[in-house]
Amino acid sequence: MTSVFIDELDASTYAAYAARPGSTLIIPTGATEQHGPHMPLGVDAMLSKDIAAAVAQKLGALVAPGFSYGYKSQPRSGGGNHRTGTTSLGATALMALTEDVVSSFMTQGFENIVVLNGHFENYQFLYEGIDNATAKMRSAGSRARAVLLSYWDFVDDDTLARVFPEGFLGWDIEHGGVLETSLMLLLRPHLVDMSRVENHPPATLTAYDIFPEDPARTPDSGCLSSATGATADRGQLLLDAITGSIAHALRGELAEPSVLT
Amino acid sequence: MTSVFIDELDASTYAAYAARPGSTLIIPTGATEQHGPHMPLGVDAMLSKDIAAAVAQKLGALVAPGFSYGYKSQPRSGGGNHRTGTTSLGATALMALTEDVVSSFMTQGFENIVVLNGHFENYQFLYEGIDNATAKMRSAGSRARAVLLSYWDFVDDDTLARVFPEGFLGWDIEHGGVLETSLMLLLRPHLVDMSRVENHPPATLTAYDIFPEDPARTPDSGCLSSATGATADRGQLLLDAITGSIAHALRGELAEPSVLT
Amino acid sequence: MTSVFIDELDASTYAAYAARPGSTLIIPTGATEQHGPHMPLGVDAMLSKDIAAAVAQKLGALVAPGFSYGYKSQPRSGGGNHRTGTTSLGATALMALTEDVVSSFMTQGFENIVVLNGHFENYQFLYEGIDNATAKMRSAGSRARAVLLSYWDFVDDDTLARVFPEGFLGWDIEHGGVLETSLMLLLRPHLVDMSRVENHPPATLTAYDIFPEDPARTPDSGCLSSATGATADRGQLLLDAITGSIAHALRGELAEPSVLT
Amino acid sequence: MTSVFIDELDASTYAAYAARPGSTLIIPTGATEQHGPHMPLGVDAMLSKDIAAAVAQKLGALVAPGFSYGYKSQPRSGGGNHRTGTTSLGATALMALTEDVVSSFMTQGFENIVVLNGHFENYQFLYEGIDNATAKMRSAGSRARAVLLSYWDFVDDDTLARVFPEGFLGWDIEHGGVLETSLMLLLRPHLVDMSRVENHPPATLTAYDIFPEDPARTPDSGCLSSATGATADRGQLLLDAITGSIAHALRGELAEPSVLT
Amino acid sequence: MTSVFIDELDASTYAAYAARPGSTLIIPTGATEQHGPHMPLGVDAMLSKDIAAAVAQKLGALVAPGFSYGYKSQPRSGGGNHRTGTTSLGATALMALTEDVVSSFMTQGFENIVVLNGHFENYQFLYEGIDNATAKMRSAGSRARAVLLSYWDFVDDDTLARVFPEGFLGWDIEHGGVLETSLMLLLRPHLVDMSRVENHPPATLTAYDIFPEDPARTPDSGCLSSATGATADRGQLLLDAITGSIAHALRGELAEPSVLT
Amino acid sequence: MTSVFIDELDASTYAAYAARPGSTLIIPTGATEQHGPHMPLGVDAMLSKDIAAAVAQKLGALVAPGFSYGYKSQPRSGGGNHRTGTTSLGATALMALTEDVVSSFMTQGFENIVVLNGHFENYQFLYEGIDNATAKMRSAGSRARAVLLSYWDFVDDDTLARVFPEGFLGWDIEHGGVLETSLMLLLRPHLVDMSRVENHPPATLTAYDIFPEDPARTPDSGCLSSATGATADRGQLLLDAITGSIAHALRGELAEPSVLT
Repeated sequence: MTSVFIDELDASTYAAYAARPGSTLIIPTGATEQHGPHMPLGVDAMLSKDIAAAVAQKLGALVAPGFSYGYKSQPRSGGGNHRTGTTSLGATALMALTEDVVSSFMTQGFENIVVLNGHFENYQFLYEGIDNATAKMRSAGSRARAVLLSYWDFVDDDTLARVFPEGFLGWDIEHGGVLETSLMLLLRPHLVDMSRVENHPPATLTAYDIFPEDPARTPDSGCLSSATGATADRGQLLLDAITGSIAHALRGELAEPSVLT
Repeated sequence: MTSVFIDELDASTYAAYAARPGSTLIIPTGATEQHGPHMPLGVDAMLSKDIAAAVAQKLGALVAPGFSYGYKSQPRSGGGNHRTGTTSLGATALMALTEDVVSSFMTQGFENIVVLNGHFENYQFLYEGIDNATAKMRSAGSRARAVLLSYWDFVDDDTLARVFPEGFLGWDIEHGGVLETSLMLLLRPHLVDMSRVENHPPATLTAYDIFPEDPARTPDSGCLSSATGATADRGQLLLDAITGSIAHALRGELAEPSVLT
Repeated sequence: MTSVFIDELDASTYAAYAARPGSTLIIPTGATEQHGPHMPLGVDAMLSKDIAAAVAQKLGALVAPGFSYGYKSQPRSGGGNHRTGTTSLGATALMALTEDVVSSFMTQGFENIVVLNGHFENYQFLYEGIDNATAKMRSAGSRARAVLLSYWDFVDDDTLARVFPEGFLGWDIEHGGVLETSLMLLLRPHLVDMSRVENHPPATLTAYDIFPEDPARTPDSGCLSSATGATADRGQLLLDAITGSIAHALRGELAEPSVLT
Repeated sequence: MTSVFIDELDASTYAAYAARPGSTLIIPTGATEQHGPHMPLGVDAMLSKDIAAAVAQKLGALVAPGFSYGYKSQPRSGGGNHRTGTTSLGATALMALTEDVVSSFMTQGFENIVVLNGHFENYQFLYEGIDNATAKMRSAGSRARAVLLSYWDFVDDDTLARVFPEGFLGWDIEHGGVLETSLMLLLRPHLVDMSRVENHPPATLTAYDIFPEDPARTPDSGCLSSATGATADRGQLLLDAITGSIAHALRGELAEPSVLT
Repeated sequence: MTSVFIDELDASTYAAYAARPGSTLIIPTGATEQHGPHMPLGVDAMLSKDIAAAVAQKLGALVAPGFSYGYKSQPRSGGGNHRTGTTSLGATALMALTEDVVSSFMTQGFENIVVLNGHFENYQFLYEGIDNATAKMRSAGSRARAVLLSYWDFVDDDTLARVFPEGFLGWDIEHGGVLETSLMLLLRPHLVDMSRVENHPPATLTAYDIFPEDPARTPDSGCLSSATGATADRGQLLLDAITGSIAHALRGELAEPSVLT
Repeated sequence: MTSVFIDELDASTYAAYAARPGSTLIIPTGATEQHGPHMPLGVDAMLSKDIAAAVAQKLGALVAPGFSYGYKSQPRSGGGNHRTGTTSLGATALMALTEDVVSSFMTQGFENIVVLNGHFENYQFLYEGIDNATAKMRSAGSRARAVLLSYWDFVDDDTLARVFPEGFLGWDIEHGGVLETSLMLLLRPHLVDMSRVENHPPATLTAYDIFPEDPARTPDSGCLSSATGATADRGQLLLDAITGSIAHALRGELAEPSVLT
């Protein structure tokens, strides 16, 4: 039995890998969040899982079960937590989940833990969870290390120019837009219905947040920009750039990730 | 786009279902835990997900993304938390995760939430999370209800007699044994390697727990009994009994679950 | 001054005992919970205290002040948390109480801590508290150990057959039934009024929990089965079996418990 | 069955009382703490329980199971948390315990909850727990009220002059001294051994606390002053003053406490 | 007595303002964090306070005592939490502080609460605290609203071009750089020593975070870019742009902020 | 750049001081709380800061940014938490804030941390925070120590007699009274308006607390006694006594506090 996903591995195979020098585990983190009328609720969880698997294959690393629920969707990056379909964790739950899972994997012998984030709002709470786990494990004598990243931070300017020929307007409005839709068209095409994409202008975002949320500020579609230009080809450009760049970075950070054979 | 799994549904389809009278959502909860040399780490998460889907199809209900990580494996039901492959949450994380997710789904309009548990150790912490969520939602005016169950509690005596013709020794030793292996042989056969099943006597369990755990008391295989007698046919007997019985119970409790059309 | 109860011991006598090899302390945990019209609210706290004292005397161990309040009464084991008289802790309070008390006793030198539970619903939260305390103390260099048990798990089949000649129907319906009432008739007879025992059939329990609780599913008496057959003689059979069996198990686990002289 | 202690009452009797206008419940709070060589560890729990019972009898109120464990003993009021025999809770546990217990009793119908404190260090954490419980219950529509007091605050100057004819030096040094010992000689004489009282001068307390504690600043006896002058007669003076004064105050605050008949 | 700072106002004046329609309170949030050899530890707290005061004067609003301590400094925005002088809160403390303070001000009658952030790492934890406070207050019937912003998000492109004539390289490297130093030269010139500014190239930041932090990746100066180009004139450009733009945005959001007269 | 306040020091100067043997840091803790019609909301924060600075100058120590928000004002010491202007933290927030800040400073090298309290209600929560921080740091190998004090505990009887020639009635009624007003007249005279002092008798305080608070028991002024006798001269007497006595005590406790040069 072999797989890049640890939930499909038996304990012996898994234990043998975890005990090797350079053993590396990638934890994908997403959300359950509306992504417009043309894409399913699981986009963030699916993309982080698929990208994690692609990176793991490049490195010879393994992939842990992902986080299916994420921090509250915020209006300026995900359309807001008031939209039906968006199912969220508070900060305390997400931090505790992260700290426990990262500590547990470090205890089992992994030398490198990579948390690969696919939901913008998660980042700081993942940071706190990993930081606390690492501090606890260090004080218990572990030498394990961790890396935290969001996959879109690995898209280079050249790729951006090819995917957004009319100009890139910023990651904040990409919720349900060309980036995510192109990747989904490539990776999970049966879950995308391009006929339902609405062609509306990008959302005008304020430079601040208001409480309680004002539903009127999120476009009806739930997307912060239109996915009209999304194609599987653009998805391939993005996926190649992202996985190549993440793998390159991790090779540099982690020296020699071990390979599961 | 239609699916029993909400992460594969678009937000509009999902919202329309959640708003209906009798809307019902099943949340499967499992664990990442060693299950012997012949089965993968994801057994509890996979079985709870598959059973949830089968029940949902009978009822016309939906299935939420499951909990991939569960409470600490205990020696008397899961072999113990010290085994490599077993990756666990503390009580605080699991309770917070449960409370937030259940509250969030209730807020979105579901009238019935069913938490379908596949990892013995989770039960009381799921209970606390659901109880707190329900109390909070009731005080906010919601009329939503919730049900908590573990799937093995729905195996009737007749089925038990057919699956364990030599006599049933108790659920506590079924970790990695005939029950789980038969279901996996039916539902995820490519992830089971019967040639690696060890034929050892059932573990002798104490009537108490000790701290810290004593690894010597768990059989080397990590299973509390041998899966030698497991077959896909027995898995089918179990699955039919379990899903039939759960669906019957839920129909009684929830009156008319709405059907996604 | 000598007593098996530490709250009746002066600090010098106590400290001398705690410092000995094999020093053993039993912490009884109960609840404040309705137990039908014929028994007082303190049944679980009283029985766990009395059994702890009897075991301590056999072993030469000491008994700590018990936990008078327990986790929320659940309908399938205690009639439910909605009944007047039932006064409960949430999980967080019970786990924190357990962790702090166990840590504190370990810090003072006890080598063996036994938590003797008398309220079904407490078990998993006691487990978490003890597990966290043990982990913390181990990382601080302590070699102390702990044992967690519920007293009814030590009733052997032979005793069961003598106490329930018409057949034993399961521990779940024993709330306010023959087991507890017989023990109370033996140990605290002035607090039992057998003339108020109602002769109703055992409660029909579901295989699942519902939220919020449905008061109609608990018998009016608050008992899950009738205590009609309870006698002090049966209480003596039970007490002998329970204390003998617990003492035997602890002697095996704890090697040589020290004796307070 | 009748008793001032609710753990000795059956649920029906209890429920009938709780439902009456003016129903009043007293919760005694103590500690498990060294009290010198002449007194047992349970002094604070015993005295708060006995005083609560005496007050309850004057008022016709009931007494709940007390808190046997209290906040960390502080050097300037209890000799310090480093002394063997002193078994303490952190703030979080004590606050959660208080909030849950007070909320639970208010939910059951009590109109007046009195927390009667017998361990100096508990006060502010009890305050927080009661304040949070009251706020929560008020927002749920309850009109229940609560009172928090420490029993020594009800000793009047005249009594003080009679109990301490050589002059009263302040409550802070009374740990294990004349006040507590006199009350114990009256209420639990078999647990006091006056032959072991050490005649040492009162401890010289600093005006500040240091961390970590310095064991050298606590007298070897563990008492902050000598109990040499303690007698049961003085205990009677104190008890009369305390219970009379508390009952008087509660009658004024709570209007007409209901009487259990 | 009049002041824009509430800690300098008497309770009567304050209460009269809070009770008015449109009453608005600004809470500045900063950090205690190293800012290179040329600036003091209090830069984030000072700048958020001064900017809040300037905005409050434009609006007629008040300013609350600021948060002097912030979330852990992160290497990619503040040089990292390992640097001496950087004194940080964990997420739990910062979220609790925010929730309590915002709730408390809303309870006192303020209709508008503005949290004006001056430390990048704080944002998501402030968000969670404000979101929880707002939800709690809404369920208690309050109509108060809140706004969260970071002041640098209000610098327009034109100002940016004038302050960074050689090109703006991104906010992430502005820790201890031209932005903060220019503002300090304008607002607290006696606390800046330009002779100690080091002329080093901007830090090369990774696209990810590593745990534990690697001190070697932060420039020796502790600044992520050099403040060589900082001047009070540029500070004035920035201050005018920031305060004008924030005041404009708040006027739009909050309708008519009340004026303290 | 030199200052007794660390927020005005650059990181290099600060780090050099923290690394010295005997390095000492004082953290002032106050509140935002109504102090009658004649004084501002910041009295507790201002006085603790000013006294900390005066003590630091005597010792050669440094002063950290203070805590501007404190625990809930209690009716018997601060007039109560219901008064407008009183802005408070719950226990959890204050304890977490204290633990994190004290830990953080100890990690940076300070050998002595002094928490100088200016708000009565804070004390026990500061105690818990410091105790937890110290325990954590000790287990991590630190030898740092901490001191906790409230400044009014350092006023000697002689000074008391001179400041209160008509007799001192107890610290509990000094909220907004002669002590605080005299110190403010000395230290921040522009923030005191003696013409608004009301001449009312001292509040009659109960020996217990009630929940919820009864606003009618606090004098309309918000002060628990009248500040009529307050003068700057009396403030000087108090300040000299307090700072002299604290400095003397700290010199004794901390051996040789290092001096910032």
